Amino acid sequence: MMDEQLLLSGLLWRTERLFHDKKIITRLGPGEYHSYTYADYAKRVRKLAGALTEFGVRPGERVGTIAWNHYRHFETYFGVPGIGAVLHTINMRLFPEQQAYLINHAEDSVLIIDEDQIPVVEQLVDMGIPTVRAFIVMGDGPLPETSLDPVYRYEDVLARGSEDFEFPEFDEHTASAMCYTSATTGDPKGVLYSHRAMVLQAMCLAMHDKLNMSESQVWLEVAPMFHCNGWNIPHTALLQGATLVLPGIHPSDGDYVEMVADLGVTGMNGAVTIGTMMRDFVRASDRQWDLSSLKTMWLGGQAPSRAITEWWEQTYGTHVVQGYGMTECTPQICFNFTKSTLADQGEEAVYALRQKGGQPIPLMKIKVLGEEGQELPWDGTSVGDFWVRSPFTASEYYHDERTKENMVGGWFRTGDVGAIDEHGYVIIKDRSKDLIKSGGEWISSIDLENALMAHPKVREATVVSVPHEKWLERPLACVVPSDDSITEEELREYLMGSFAKWWIPDAFLFVSQVPKTSVGKYNKKEIRAIYGAGGADEVRARFGLTVA
Amino acid sequence: MMDEQLLLSGLLWRTERLFHDKKIITRLGPGEYHSYTYADYAKRVRKLAGALTEFGVRPGERVGTIAWNHYRHFETYFGVPGIGAVLHTINMRLFPEQQAYLINHAEDSVLIIDEDQIPVVEQLVDMGIPTVRAFIVMGDGPLPETSLDPVYRYEDVLARGSEDFEFPEFDEHTASAMCYTSATTGDPKGVLYSHRAMVLQAMCLAMHDKLNMSESQVWLEVAPMFHCNGWNIPHTALLQGATLVLPGIHPSDGDYVEMVADLGVTGMNGAVTIGTMMRDFVRASDRQWDLSSLKTMWLGGQAPSRAITEWWEQTYGTHVVQGYGMTECTPQICFNFTKSTLADQGEEAVYALRQKGGQPIPLMKIKVLGEEGQELPWDGTSVGDFWVRSPFTASEYYHDERTKENMVGGWFRTGDVGAIDEHGYVIIKDRSKDLIKSGGEWISSIDLENALMAHPKVREATVVSVPHEKWLERPLACVVPSDDSITEEELREYLMGSFAKWWIPDAFLFVSQVPKTSVGKYNKKEIRAIYGAGGADEVRARFGLTVA
Repeated sequence: MMDEQLLLSGLLWRTERLFHDKKIITRLGPGEYHSYTYADYAKRVRKLAGALTEFGVRPGERVGTIAWNHYRHFETYFGVPGIGAVLHTINMRLFPEQQAYLINHAEDSVLIIDEDQIPVVEQLVDMGIPTVRAFIVMGDGPLPETSLDPVYRYEDVLARGSEDFEFPEFDEHTASAMCYTSATTGDPKGVLYSHRAMVLQAMCLAMHDKLNMSESQVWLEVAPMFHCNGWNIPHTALLQGATLVLPGIHPSDGDYVEMVADLGVTGMNGAVTIGTMMRDFVRASDRQWDLSSLKTMWLGGQAPSRAITEWWEQTYGTHVVQGYGMTECTPQICFNFTKSTLADQGEEAVYALRQKGGQPIPLMKIKVLGEEGQELPWDGTSVGDFWVRSPFTASEYYHDERTKENMVGGWFRTGDVGAIDEHGYVIIKDRSKDLIKSGGEWISSIDLENALMAHPKVREATVVSVPHEKWLERPLACVVPSDDSITEEELREYLMGSFAKWWIPDAFLFVSQVPKTSVGKYNKKEIRAIYGAGGADEVRARFGLTVA
Repeated sequence: MMDEQLLLSGLLWRTERLFHDKKIITRLGPGEYHSYTYADYAKRVRKLAGALTEFGVRPGERVGTIAWNHYRHFETYFGVPGIGAVLHTINMRLFPEQQAYLINHAEDSVLIIDEDQIPVVEQLVDMGIPTVRAFIVMGDGPLPETSLDPVYRYEDVLARGSEDFEFPEFDEHTASAMCYTSATTGDPKGVLYSHRAMVLQAMCLAMHDKLNMSESQVWLEVAPMFHCNGWNIPHTALLQGATLVLPGIHPSDGDYVEMVADLGVTGMNGAVTIGTMMRDFVRASDRQWDLSSLKTMWLGGQAPSRAITEWWEQTYGTHVVQGYGMTECTPQICFNFTKSTLADQGEEAVYALRQKGGQPIPLMKIKVLGEEGQELPWDGTSVGDFWVRSPFTASEYYHDERTKENMVGGWFRTGDVGAIDEHGYVIIKDRSKDLIKSGGEWISSIDLENALMAHPKVREATVVSVPHEKWLERPLACVVPSDDSITEEELREYLMGSFAKWWIPDAFLFVSQVPKTSVGKYNKKEIRAIYGAGGADEVRARFGLTVA
């Protein structure tokens, strides 16, 4: 067989020829969109690649981006790796100190940023990001006033490149992109993604029994493109020639709803909170929204609640799906679809199945190990550490000693704890560090959260471990009510219906919001820290007690 | 990223865990089926792999099969490559001389055959196949009397292996299977398929906008498993956990119809003639057949006629699809699905689109070169030679000097001639050797055949080049009528509506059948040879003149 390499430029080769008339649409403002074709896109990607080469960006060098989801950012997705350089997407929601750390750790040579990020990047320069040789600012119109130097307008840079630029060929194991873990403990850890990994995972996501990513889809990418390659959705949409919709700068919940209605969006992906916020927007809106084009909503980060799942399905016929992934896995590990042989066991059983993390995607191997390192049976109840391996799983962290803690014997320790059922559906019990060990027994914070979020008066809930004199650790629940009549006693009784008495949280704090990480996960580390500093009163003081 | 290799055993790892309860069903006789699960299958594959290792089959050695489509043959698909050996599927329909040539050229070390092939293989032994060290006979009950030596019952061999056999890991570029071209000219040419090629192509076929090969499919594999990896369908079904239906020993057209009705088959693939023969069987049958479960019928070898396409769609709602492939490409090159942007142009335009060979599948690159070797535009009219490259295209023929004629500069010359339209749909005009050069101008035999087969009174038609004193070559049509009232004049006038006068065949021979190759293609070589020996009269004499 020919030794043809799996390169991102190979995916583009096909899309620009076969799907040249299909569209990439970016929201500019209310009801206002930028729209161009994959043919236009490919020309601009080639120009970007040529211009970066002229800029002196060499294979292997890192090019950072700090940007929203829009067509120019998507151009960097293929333009930067196309010349063998590495696209380092930087989390926009981090504090400047953290961003500077990432840029310096990755040794980014060029930064491509959105216009609204100029003040932040000026701060980064003041802090010291010495490897950055040039700043390229995306946006329309003239370059805003800035102290960044040397600084270029993205469109001027593109004008230097040729749309006939030919992508070089190289080994498929070459790094194409990098991303840092969102770092709930310690410094962030960097992961390099090979071209091979990106291509193979996009192929897996384009297969049946996943997202339904076909050519006829109109897909809205809400998950941030700076986070885990935007869950690999932009690559998959391009591979399939699907219409790709990007929400642009500073989108609101209402903007997502409007885009679905305006553009006939058929599928979308984002954090679980997006599904909740869009629902709340629709409910509160005076307008009757027709969102019935939306057939698939992939919600990630944690399991979507039953209330949200059912609301979307009953209101618009939207199928809510979930998967399981992490930065180290490009990022997908599992995807949840209902096997035909399990579809006829009644609504409750199917719903319970859909609450699981899903089955490993093709090429992904998974195992669950007990405390002695023994492999546990796939029986749905044997709980241990999840380990994975695949051609799209990291074999190391970028220049990081912590590699040896997590990558052992050709497998990666995910840090998640749970079980696998007899059909290979993963049941995630907790991040190992979020498990609560009370009196020597494990309590799953995720099980409690899922139960609480299924309560009709609960909008959001998180459960964290707090120190306890006698039991060492005990669960504490922080609950955002959706109904003012909620009481602690009511929740306690409700949980008693499903859990042993010693699982019930010692306290239920009613709060106006649960703090979240930069990628939308519950920030348990922050809650624990606040509780540690001043107990329940301090948590109440910070997040607002709304119910007595 | 981890250097995890793309191996067939990796696909099996997932299927035996996730889809262990899904079925593989083999027809044994009228209404009688053998059925077992992928869990059973995987155990037997492991036993086979272990037993072959014990037999002394070493990595890289070729193991030949001469067998029908059934579960035991499918076990060899993963068992043989699983230990790094090469599965050489031998065409059952070849003459013994040709089979002996293949076995000797491939230097097969073991032959795994069906019971009904014993007399043929005994002949092969008499002819001399010295590399074969052992014969393994598949079937039920005791081993039949035979002079083969040493000879083993397949089930006895399996009994020596362990279902806990662990597949070794090796480089994904290792050969997994081999197949010989059906050789319309010269000796057959061998192609080795790597594990990487098989895995990647199965992934492509499992993607949306192809066959709809999802887990919920019940797929009938009619295309012979000895031909081009059974078009890679068995691997794709296994990858997706789809129910796989195999027609067993000596199936008839009626058996296919019965299987669809009995088992609720949802998709199937086979030569174009299968679609015709099944239709004819249904029409002639006394029974009312409900085949409405059949949603997809993939017909290959040549373009399915409009009559057949419409009959299936109108009668049962079955969507008839086609692709374009060849032994050297594992075998898929293109697959025809209707792009959403081309679906609204009216029935005739959509039908014309569906008559094309389709768009290149992911990872496949294609180009069309003119006589000077210049790349021709994708305009639907510029006709030249098709060249392809991909990770699943052969870089050489197995131990064959002819490699250098066809594999040039990293590309493979397909030997097909045609054009590519602006959406990347391939339009196959002819095998370059079947093109008719009349008075210095090219005539496409395929265009004429397709037109003839669209005529309501035509069942099958082929057009071949025959020598001519003045024009050097002229087209000759052989037509199998579906209606006795057909006349030569009628066909001539009909073609005049679509073609220049000099394209119209000089003669139309009405015959009872068109000779076919061992894989079901029109055997133009044979017709030309008969015509060369005795002219039109000899063709009529051989294939039976049914209409005056």
